[in-house]
Amino acid sequence: MVETAERHQVVIVGGGFGGLYAAKALRRGPVDVTLIDKRNFHLFQPLLYQVATGTVSPADISSPLRSILSRNRNTTVLMEEVIDLDPERQRVILKGKELPYDTLIVATGVSHHYFGNEQWKDTAPGLKTVEDALEMRRRIFMAFEAAEKETDPEKRRAWLTFVIVGGGPTGVELAGAIAELAFGTLRDDFRNIDTTEARVLLLEGLDRILPPYPPELSAEAAASLTRLGVTVQTKTLVTDIEGATITTRQGEQTEQISAKTVLWAAGVKASALGQVIADRAGVALDRVGRVMVSPDLSVPGHPNIFVIGDLANVSHQDGKPLPGVAPVAMQEGQYVAKLIRQRLKGGSDFPPFTYTNAGSLAVIGQNRAVADLGFIKFSGPIAWLIWVFAHIYYLIEFDNKLIVMLQWAWSYFTRKRGARLITGEASLMQVGTTPDGEYRSPVPDATVKA
Amino acid sequence: MVETAERHQVVIVGGGFGGLYAAKALRRGPVDVTLIDKRNFHLFQPLLYQVATGTVSPADISSPLRSILSRNRNTTVLMEEVIDLDPERQRVILKGKELPYDTLIVATGVSHHYFGNEQWKDTAPGLKTVEDALEMRRRIFMAFEAAEKETDPEKRRAWLTFVIVGGGPTGVELAGAIAELAFGTLRDDFRNIDTTEARVLLLEGLDRILPPYPPELSAEAAASLTRLGVTVQTKTLVTDIEGATITTRQGEQTEQISAKTVLWAAGVKASALGQVIADRAGVALDRVGRVMVSPDLSVPGHPNIFVIGDLANVSHQDGKPLPGVAPVAMQEGQYVAKLIRQRLKGGSDFPPFTYTNAGSLAVIGQNRAVADLGFIKFSGPIAWLIWVFAHIYYLIEFDNKLIVMLQWAWSYFTRKRGARLITGEASLMQVGTTPDGEYRSPVPDATVKA
Repeated sequence: MVETAERHQVVIVGGGFGGLYAAKALRRGPVDVTLIDKRNFHLFQPLLYQVATGTVSPADISSPLRSILSRNRNTTVLMEEVIDLDPERQRVILKGKELPYDTLIVATGVSHHYFGNEQWKDTAPGLKTVEDALEMRRRIFMAFEAAEKETDPEKRRAWLTFVIVGGGPTGVELAGAIAELAFGTLRDDFRNIDTTEARVLLLEGLDRILPPYPPELSAEAAASLTRLGVTVQTKTLVTDIEGATITTRQGEQTEQISAKTVLWAAGVKASALGQVIADRAGVALDRVGRVMVSPDLSVPGHPNIFVIGDLANVSHQDGKPLPGVAPVAMQEGQYVAKLIRQRLKGGSDFPPFTYTNAGSLAVIGQNRAVADLGFIKFSGPIAWLIWVFAHIYYLIEFDNKLIVMLQWAWSYFTRKRGARLITGEASLMQVGTTPDGEYRSPVPDATVKA
Repeated sequence: MVETAERHQVVIVGGGFGGLYAAKALRRGPVDVTLIDKRNFHLFQPLLYQVATGTVSPADISSPLRSILSRNRNTTVLMEEVIDLDPERQRVILKGKELPYDTLIVATGVSHHYFGNEQWKDTAPGLKTVEDALEMRRRIFMAFEAAEKETDPEKRRAWLTFVIVGGGPTGVELAGAIAELAFGTLRDDFRNIDTTEARVLLLEGLDRILPPYPPELSAEAAASLTRLGVTVQTKTLVTDIEGATITTRQGEQTEQISAKTVLWAAGVKASALGQVIADRAGVALDRVGRVMVSPDLSVPGHPNIFVIGDLANVSHQDGKPLPGVAPVAMQEGQYVAKLIRQRLKGGSDFPPFTYTNAGSLAVIGQNRAVADLGFIKFSGPIAWLIWVFAHIYYLIEFDNKLIVMLQWAWSYFTRKRGARLITGEASLMQVGTTPDGEYRSPVPDATVKA
């Protein structure tokens, strides 16, 4: 027998924008909510590139899920990992434990996609988690340190070459920030190298960067990046990454680039739960593993299972999938919460989800951005200001809104970046040489679990 | 032949308070300075316990060495590790490289001391590096998460028991901060546990906590901690740590405590370079490996090698060694820099180093501290305010002074702690379950190097 609770049990898997906004919108519903996440914090992913490039700290763009939801007395946060689903018995399967649900919302997002070249991921890390960002930060700043020590001009050049693969918003933001580091912030900090000799390459397979944007904004963005010192190469495919050599193809032409730092911003694939849903609920996935949901965001044939956020392929509105951005996930979370509340009141026959696009923004360096607000498209400092205020507005969930603003203001006016500590790898050097000569990993169980 | 440089070459090993203040004070000297550190940042260690307990981020209390010294045009920062010395040939030995010096300043500090029980270090981590602090943070917050999920009351109690070994300033600060977490900050965040049932034990081997302070301040500190909810046990020795069981002895009485979180604040030993100096320069070390220096802080018989900061045992002033605190290291760095400049002017016969003690401060929770300013001893909110302003004053080196102040103000007035993300271990869970099922360590080379 399944033990049944009095109140309607909603289980939400994933504490990103989708899951969090659903939980918040269910606060006043006649439901008990359990939010499950592997991490104890919500991450403001749109600013992750600023962690990677040394402007802010992970905690500045993260907020503890328990803290955000502490006043939602109907909500329990569970730091756990969902490994399977049982739609028949209405259970989510955790490690050694099951959890019953009446309604399930899955919002576990996406990870990097290497298009069948998974072996590239160690050489060309992506940017989805705090650890990813700290790893990128480590690599970027270690490259300058290594160049400072390198005497061979060829190797030094490879250390000072940064390749960003993928010309979407993340790639554009990373390339702009790295160019500003090399040509601005770090300029006076080294004695043996001239950081302005660095090369920052942004590679895009299509014929323009920021492909989802209108062509004129793509051109503006490319021009701005070029002014910052970035080399933008479009119609360029990466065909191989082997050690510090990256092979590209542009039309008929192949080129080999020696670069010690390669950053991946080229593609995403659905998180593992997508496949689980496909297997258990018999639903179709798209090419990158996202779940093909119904117009009400439920899984076809399973009206009490919803998939929202980046993990969902929602195509009924435009014919093409909605983009994997925070506003889509937030609106989806709120829509599903409302639908659940109405259902519990006895309603049926709900209008399909519609996404209200307030506009798209991508930032290029410290005072330029491109904005596509639908009725108007423009670029430059005004777009950048809108970007700043839009992000501050959404950071409203965060304790640290004011702090992030100040970090930005500081780094804007001084062009300094305080958060550029190299941690992790460097620490291995340090702890590797304790007087007793023993090795101690900063991640104690890493070796055990590996 | 040794290649000789025109200018006097000063090599400083270690970018802590001692090394950094020496480098800064040599800015206008007729010397070339090379500052070598394994890390690319200076760490404000007195606030490390606030990283461990979730108030601030590592970058808030760190500052890039290159950035601090970028205007010192005579100074080169080298991110390297010194593995040996050759006083005859006046060289420091790096990995695969040598560096000549005319004057050498060694300031590499101390690490944890387990008094012959090195096996305890995995169970009871200490607090010296950024990684240490993040590891402590992870353990503290994971303990509450684990307790929330635990159904066995005994095990739950073990998860909610925090033992801090060592009643010096670090132990007192940690115990106070953890008590505030359990009895304040986290109070409303859990649904299955009552965090106010947590036990926070501070164990000290001597007959009072804060042994270097006057007895009346030790008593005040103990009373304040008790009010915060900390159980203070003096005259208590830890005789064994095995898994989650810690065995203590108080006089004739032994006790076993079940605690999943044990933090080590009990002792330090000199860093590895101390032994190298002893071997190469034939100097005596004290019981914990610190170098017994001359009254001018040079190594006896080697007037051009200085040891400063926590690594030095400077006993000529009081008969007992100066404490391992930041002000001592700063003054020693400045003293040695001045001595070098005067020597280069042809001077000799310098007065021995004397430490000017402006006072000692230890903080106990969010608005109490104890202060021993020599002419006056007191505790309470005024002592706490002095502590705050003293630390802000010394953070003056840091970009982030204002930010840290605001973090403090925020956490003071709201009793919230924003920087409580659990990273590292939790990330292993996450990256361990990528769709392709492959394991990826957040510290890529950890397994290779281990």
